[in-house]
Amino acid sequence: MALSKKPYKGCRDFHPKEMRIRDYIFEKMKKVAHDFAFEAYDGPLLEEVDLYLAKSGEELINDQIYSFKDRGERTVAIRPEMTPTLARMVAGVHRETPKPIRWFSIPNLMRYEKPQRGRLREHWQFNADIFGAQEHLGEIEILSMMDHLMKNFGADTSMYGILLNDRRVVDAIFNHILKLDKDESHKLYKVIDKAKKVSPEVLEEMMSKIITDSKKKEIFKNYLAISSFEELTLFLEAHKIIELTGGFNDFINKIKKLPVYDSLIYDPTIVRGLDYYTGVVFEVFDKHPDNRRAIAGGGSYANLLQIFNEDPLAGIGFGMGDVTLKDFLSTHQLMPNLAHATNDILVAYFDDECEEAAFKLATSLRQESLRTELNLGVIKFKKVFKLAETKGHSFIAMIGSNELNDGLVQIKNLKNRDSKNIKIENIEEIKEYIRG
Amino acid sequence: MALSKKPYKGCRDFHPKEMRIRDYIFEKMKKVAHDFAFEAYDGPLLEEVDLYLAKSGEELINDQIYSFKDRGERTVAIRPEMTPTLARMVAGVHRETPKPIRWFSIPNLMRYEKPQRGRLREHWQFNADIFGAQEHLGEIEILSMMDHLMKNFGADTSMYGILLNDRRVVDAIFNHILKLDKDESHKLYKVIDKAKKVSPEVLEEMMSKIITDSKKKEIFKNYLAISSFEELTLFLEAHKIIELTGGFNDFINKIKKLPVYDSLIYDPTIVRGLDYYTGVVFEVFDKHPDNRRAIAGGGSYANLLQIFNEDPLAGIGFGMGDVTLKDFLSTHQLMPNLAHATNDILVAYFDDECEEAAFKLATSLRQESLRTELNLGVIKFKKVFKLAETKGHSFIAMIGSNELNDGLVQIKNLKNRDSKNIKIENIEEIKEYIRG
Repeated sequence: MALSKKPYKGCRDFHPKEMRIRDYIFEKMKKVAHDFAFEAYDGPLLEEVDLYLAKSGEELINDQIYSFKDRGERTVAIRPEMTPTLARMVAGVHRETPKPIRWFSIPNLMRYEKPQRGRLREHWQFNADIFGAQEHLGEIEILSMMDHLMKNFGADTSMYGILLNDRRVVDAIFNHILKLDKDESHKLYKVIDKAKKVSPEVLEEMMSKIITDSKKKEIFKNYLAISSFEELTLFLEAHKIIELTGGFNDFINKIKKLPVYDSLIYDPTIVRGLDYYTGVVFEVFDKHPDNRRAIAGGGSYANLLQIFNEDPLAGIGFGMGDVTLKDFLSTHQLMPNLAHATNDILVAYFDDECEEAAFKLATSLRQESLRTELNLGVIKFKKVFKLAETKGHSFIAMIGSNELNDGLVQIKNLKNRDSKNIKIENIEEIKEYIRG
Repeated sequence: MALSKKPYKGCRDFHPKEMRIRDYIFEKMKKVAHDFAFEAYDGPLLEEVDLYLAKSGEELINDQIYSFKDRGERTVAIRPEMTPTLARMVAGVHRETPKPIRWFSIPNLMRYEKPQRGRLREHWQFNADIFGAQEHLGEIEILSMMDHLMKNFGADTSMYGILLNDRRVVDAIFNHILKLDKDESHKLYKVIDKAKKVSPEVLEEMMSKIITDSKKKEIFKNYLAISSFEELTLFLEAHKIIELTGGFNDFINKIKKLPVYDSLIYDPTIVRGLDYYTGVVFEVFDKHPDNRRAIAGGGSYANLLQIFNEDPLAGIGFGMGDVTLKDFLSTHQLMPNLAHATNDILVAYFDDECEEAAFKLATSLRQESLRTELNLGVIKFKKVFKLAETKGHSFIAMIGSNELNDGLVQIKNLKNRDSKNIKIENIEEIKEYIRG
C-alpha cells in the first residue's frame, strides 16, 4: 500500500504559499519584539514531564499532552506551552541577569486536541514576558506591546479590544464580600470563566449552587454586569474593598493617560488560568461577529519560580497563537497578497552556448545579494515572461547568442517594460539598473 | 525536591546570547536561499512512523528515533530528518507545480544519540532541494549554493572543501570491473565509507573479505588512491567504463568552467547513505586539523517519490546541521561578536513626574520602528550609560524635570558622545538625528 501524503492529524504542511503567510506573521512578531527591545530565546522541544506536572497539575498532563518514556526510562513530553520552559530557564539565570528581563520566543507547541477551527494539535505561539519590572510598569509595557503588535498587523480598535481584569479584584470580592472558602472560590472562578458562554438561566443555576445568600448573589450579579473601569471603581468603593485590590485602581489611573488605554475594555469575566495568574489578566478579543473569541491572552504572575525553590520574581507575559491570529487577519482582510514569491531577477538563456555565461552572471548577481533565479536549461523566449511573473521577479536578464557575441545581456524591467543592454561583466551597472 | 533547571539531555537552552548566534546562522541561511530564489517550506513535528520505515528501514527506526503511540494507537515519531516529510509534501503537489521546484527549510530534528561534540539529540538543519531540474544543472546549482553559503559565512577554500564523488562511478567499478553481486556491493560500500577512518591494515583486511582476486584488489586500491578529477578520468578511460558513469565526466567538464569548481575536490571515499543517493554525492569538509569532518552533505536521488507510488522525479539536495556549522565558525574565528543585543535607543527618566512623557515618547519611537527600550522606573543619571551599553543601544533619550518643563528631551549619541536637545513632540527630528 502506498503511504499517505497527508500530514499527521491536526498538523499542517506549510507549502511555500502557506509558509509565506507564516513568515509574514512571524516577521511582524519579531519586529514588534525588537521595537520593544525584547531579546529572543528558545528551549528544547522535549522537557521532563515533571516540569508540566509541577506547573499545571495532573489534568493537563493526562488529557492533552504528548508524553512518552525515552529509552533511559525518563518520562518526557513535547512542550504543550512555553511558560514552564521559560520558568526553568529564568530560574537558572535570574540572579545574575539585570532586571527587568524582557524575553520573547515563537516556539512550536503540541497539544492532543480534537482538531477544529482555531485549534490544532501543532501550533506556534508568540510568547513575550517581562520579569522583575516595577509594579504596574511591566503591565503597561506588555499591554502596550500587544496593542502595538495588533496595530502593526493593520488592525484598529474597531476590530479588536483588550479585555482586562485583575485577579486581586476577584479575590477581594470572593474573600471579603462573598466570604467564600478556597473550594468555593475555585468553583466560582469556573462559573465566572463560563459566564459569557452560557444562558442567564444556566448561569443563575451554577451560581446558586455556590452562593446561597440572596444579597450576596445580587452583589455578585452586579459585579458581572460591570462594563467600564469607572463602574468598577464605583463598585469597589461602594463595597469598601478598593484598598484590597492590589492597587488596580492606581494602575488604571496611570494607564489612562497613555495611548494604549484606547484599546482597553474592562471585563469582569476575564480570569484566565486558575493556579497561575495573580494580578492583572487580559485577552485580545476579536470584535468581528463571525469570529468572537480570544486571539491572545496573558497576565501577571508572582510565583513562577517557586517550583524551582527560587525567590519570587514577579512576571507578566502573554501568548498569541498563529492559528487564531491568522483567522483574525483573514476575517478582517488584513492579510497582504502573498500569492507569489518575491524575487529580483530571472536569468534566462536561449541557446546552449550561452549556458556558461548565464551561470557566471547568476553567480555574480547572487554575490550582490540579488534574489536571482537561474533558469536551469534553455528556455523559449515566449515562455520567459510568464515564468518570471509566476515566480515574482521584477527583472529578467536575457542572454541570446547575438547579445553574447557582443558581450551584452539584455535586462528587462517587468514593471515599466523598459529594458537596457548592458555589458555582461558590468555587474555594477546591472545592479544599479535593478536597484534603481 | 526542587525541579531540575537543566534542559533535557542532549538538548539546548538558547538564552539570548546563544539565540543571537542561532539567529545569525539562520538569517544567513535564509539570505542565501533567497539569493538562489528558493522558497521556504515546513512540515509537522510528528509523522507516522511508516514514513521513516519506508525510507530508512528498521535500523534507524529502532535505534535512533523518538517514536511512541498516540492516544489513537497511531505509531508516530518526532522527525529525525526532513527528507521523508519533504518527499511526502512534494509527492502531493509535484504534478501541478512548475519545475524545477526549489525549496528550503530549517527544521528542528531529534535523534536519540549519545550526546558528544558535534552531535546532540536536538539540532536544526538547513535543507535545500531542487526537483525536476535538467541533469547536471541541478547539481551545479546546489553545489554553487553550498559554496555561496560557506562564503557568506566568511569562509574560503583554505578552510573548507567540497568533497565530491558519483555513485554511478562506484557502481560501474563494482558491477563491471569487480563483478560484485548485490550483497557484496553493499558490503564494499561500507568498506569505502570507512576507508579513511581505519588503518591501512584494517582496510586491507576488510577488503580481502569481499575481493579475493588479487588483480581486482589492486584495481580497487588504485581507485581509492585517486585524488583528482583528472586522475579519475584516466582511471575510467583505462578501464573502459567512462560511458557507464552516467555522464559524470560531462558534468565535470561543465562545472570546470564555473567559479564553484575551485571549491571541489574529488574524493573516492564519499558515498553517503546507501539506499538513497543514485548520482552525485558530496560533503562540505572542514580543513582545520582540530575539526576534520563533514559540516554538510547531500547528493542526487532518483527515486524519492517511489514510496508514494508516484512517477520518478529527480532531485538533488543537501543538509547542514547547526551544531557542526557553529563548531566550524568558531574554529575558524568566523563568528561575529554577538555578546550584546542591538538596539537603537534607551528612554530614561529621572523623576516620577517624567514617567508619562517617557512612556509616550517610547510609544512614538516604536511607531517609527526604532528599537526602543523604555526603562521601567526612575533611574539614577550615573547608571544610565552602563545600562545602555549592556543592552547595545546607540542612543539615549534622557528626560529630567528641567528638560520636561521646556518640553525638551536630550538625545545622546553614544558613539560620538554628541548630544542634542529636541522638542519631545518632534518625533521626526528625533528620528532623523538617530537614523543620521
